[in-house]
Amino acid sequence: MEKGVPALQAPLPLDQVATQKWNILAEDVPLPVAILRERALRANSAWMRGYIEQTGVSIAPHGKTSMAPALYDLQISDGAWAITVSTPQHFAVAREFGFKRIFMANQLIGRRGIANVIDGLKASPDLAFYCLVDDTANVAALARAVRERGLGRPLNVLVELGFEGGRTGCRSLEAALQVAHAVAEEADALNLAGVEGFEGLLRNDGAPEILVQVNALLDGMVTLAETADREGLFGDGEVLLSAGGSSYYDLVTTKLSAAKLSRAFRVLIRSGCYITHDSHMYVRARDALARRDPALAATGNLEPALEVWAYVQSRPEPCKAIVGFGKRDASYDDPPIGLKWFRPGLHDKPQPLPPGHIVQRLNDQHCHLEIPAQSPLLVGDMLGFGISHPCLTFDKWRVMHLVDEDYLVTGSIRTYF
Amino acid sequence: MEKGVPALQAPLPLDQVATQKWNILAEDVPLPVAILRERALRANSAWMRGYIEQTGVSIAPHGKTSMAPALYDLQISDGAWAITVSTPQHFAVAREFGFKRIFMANQLIGRRGIANVIDGLKASPDLAFYCLVDDTANVAALARAVRERGLGRPLNVLVELGFEGGRTGCRSLEAALQVAHAVAEEADALNLAGVEGFEGLLRNDGAPEILVQVNALLDGMVTLAETADREGLFGDGEVLLSAGGSSYYDLVTTKLSAAKLSRAFRVLIRSGCYITHDSHMYVRARDALARRDPALAATGNLEPALEVWAYVQSRPEPCKAIVGFGKRDASYDDPPIGLKWFRPGLHDKPQPLPPGHIVQRLNDQHCHLEIPAQSPLLVGDMLGFGISHPCLTFDKWRVMHLVDEDYLVTGSIRTYF
Repeated sequence: MEKGVPALQAPLPLDQVATQKWNILAEDVPLPVAILRERALRANSAWMRGYIEQTGVSIAPHGKTSMAPALYDLQISDGAWAITVSTPQHFAVAREFGFKRIFMANQLIGRRGIANVIDGLKASPDLAFYCLVDDTANVAALARAVRERGLGRPLNVLVELGFEGGRTGCRSLEAALQVAHAVAEEADALNLAGVEGFEGLLRNDGAPEILVQVNALLDGMVTLAETADREGLFGDGEVLLSAGGSSYYDLVTTKLSAAKLSRAFRVLIRSGCYITHDSHMYVRARDALARRDPALAATGNLEPALEVWAYVQSRPEPCKAIVGFGKRDASYDDPPIGLKWFRPGLHDKPQPLPPGHIVQRLNDQHCHLEIPAQSPLLVGDMLGFGISHPCLTFDKWRVMHLVDEDYLVTGSIRTYF
Repeated sequence: MEKGVPALQAPLPLDQVATQKWNILAEDVPLPVAILRERALRANSAWMRGYIEQTGVSIAPHGKTSMAPALYDLQISDGAWAITVSTPQHFAVAREFGFKRIFMANQLIGRRGIANVIDGLKASPDLAFYCLVDDTANVAALARAVRERGLGRPLNVLVELGFEGGRTGCRSLEAALQVAHAVAEEADALNLAGVEGFEGLLRNDGAPEILVQVNALLDGMVTLAETADREGLFGDGEVLLSAGGSSYYDLVTTKLSAAKLSRAFRVLIRSGCYITHDSHMYVRARDALARRDPALAATGNLEPALEVWAYVQSRPEPCKAIVGFGKRDASYDDPPIGLKWFRPGLHDKPQPLPPGHIVQRLNDQHCHLEIPAQSPLLVGDMLGFGISHPCLTFDKWRVMHLVDEDYLVTGSIRTYF
């Protein structure tokens, strides 16, 4: 009775799914369903392996994208240095599944959240953990909690630099240095492990004025890191310089790698969306990257791996079809994109959806699809949609299926939102 | 490691949650968390019991709103006649939890979906089920499946009437009657059990031109039902006349109750959102209802029962706070509304959030809150938000907590999306 999962007589372990030989196109699986094209997924993951090998940076892919430990496994096997998380709950999932390096790209706040993370670290002495700070009161609260709960090793924190109008992070070098000093003064409990920023909100298809802002943030991070280095604020171990959503990691790599520190440092990008890519927002971001760096783009493209399949539910007007999926099944900041069409009994493989089939809007459980009057679609036809922004599609599914190029289900993954 | 659930040493049955004496304000539960104020929930449910008793209509509350069988139990105990669902997966959940009358407010389509529902009905001979049809090919497909799978009793279907520019449903009386005739011709397999429409998409705070459209649809349904009755198309048993989202059930009640049929019929409304109400969209809908029908509104108001609580995550600019929840935690067609403020160690109960704290936008995991420069908010303060549109908030949570007026957790519910 889980969405996208066939009725089962008994619980089916995930590693037994492939033995069932379900095929999406044979209607073995109820729709709507979210699928991951395994070939594209592996190709995207391999492309990122090539990128980090070529550039010498590390990646801690953002795990919040999928919240699917099975995909973290793939990312780690392709050389990821750590898994990034957003919240104490995400941390708990990554820890429970045995990942050994976790980067929380947020301040750690809240009595229960702080306690849960510290207790988790106590119980896992070999687990390396990093989180952000942008507030001296939070620095004090973390140090107090580390002492009170007896963590027994310092908590690694990175000072976050932000930008005016942005999200979290100190708005000036001075404010960031003040936080860094506050951390250094709690050296028995906290370890200043680096400098962090997040440029991913600056989203404008690489327009020049946005790139100026991105580069200004990255330059500020370098200045902050060099200053903290000169002032001896960093604790033991290598220093991390980390930034990077899924749009500008090329700029992050270039700028942060050029920092001049007195000691070893690691540049850590955190893209999460490359693993599935998408069919809209990140296509545009990738096009912008290709314009910035044609040589990088020539190393290979990312492919959209995530599709949502649904039936034509009704065809009530000549130019309108209602499809059986909605806001509960796919991200909708940008509308899903109709890609493929398959009629059971007629087709032997998915057909490209003819032009003119445009998603107008989504309701909770329904999609309003504008269609040409001569559209062949009938009730019961299957449609495959590409999505924009994988993060807000993954969180709509508890189970997603891996498929081969013939839409045979080769495995399933579980998400932990 | 579930969102909003404390770290547990061992699995905790839902009926043991109350023994834990968790209190949201004591930070016993990690944030963000979604809570249901039990008093408001029960009052809303009781108000609807009063409504159906007073009007003589029945309600099949839309279960897709919450996908929480524990709330269906409350609704049934307050007199609900059936549970409404949208999809075969929803049907499977309601059947699995033992509900004995299920109304699917959709066409039943897709090989696997049709098979799962029919097999579920075969296995539950005492389960009454109803679904919609607006397409003669679907009528034929359902009849064929009923025969092939040997259901052993006819499948109850209602013809759906829609409106131009709307969602599903036949666009004319003629088209609807054609579908009704097609059903009647499959009388060994299908039972024409009534007429259905959905006016809920016509959402405009009760503007007069919208009310004209709502009433036109309802008049059309009555004409369709009266015609089908005259032509002897309905099968055995009482006839259902069903419509009703959460905005216009008063109009549905009045119009459909006035139908003149030769036999007993039941008017079935399907509001799902009354149980939690909300803090925006349905407040406006309720205000519009109160203007239409002051006497009905005087029987009591609905109260917002659903709140999302989160911490202030960062306060990076004088007029900006970042709060630790986002698009993965609350509906965002309309932004959440800051209601309450609580500082652990300072307050003994939630304070009204002072004016000027306005949600500007949500990211996946963050909320951008505009605040007055003199706002008292600090990192780690707790904020309670009201939401707009409960359906798209419920689906963001696997577990939600019931709380009393002191925010003591009195139980938890699980959702099955």
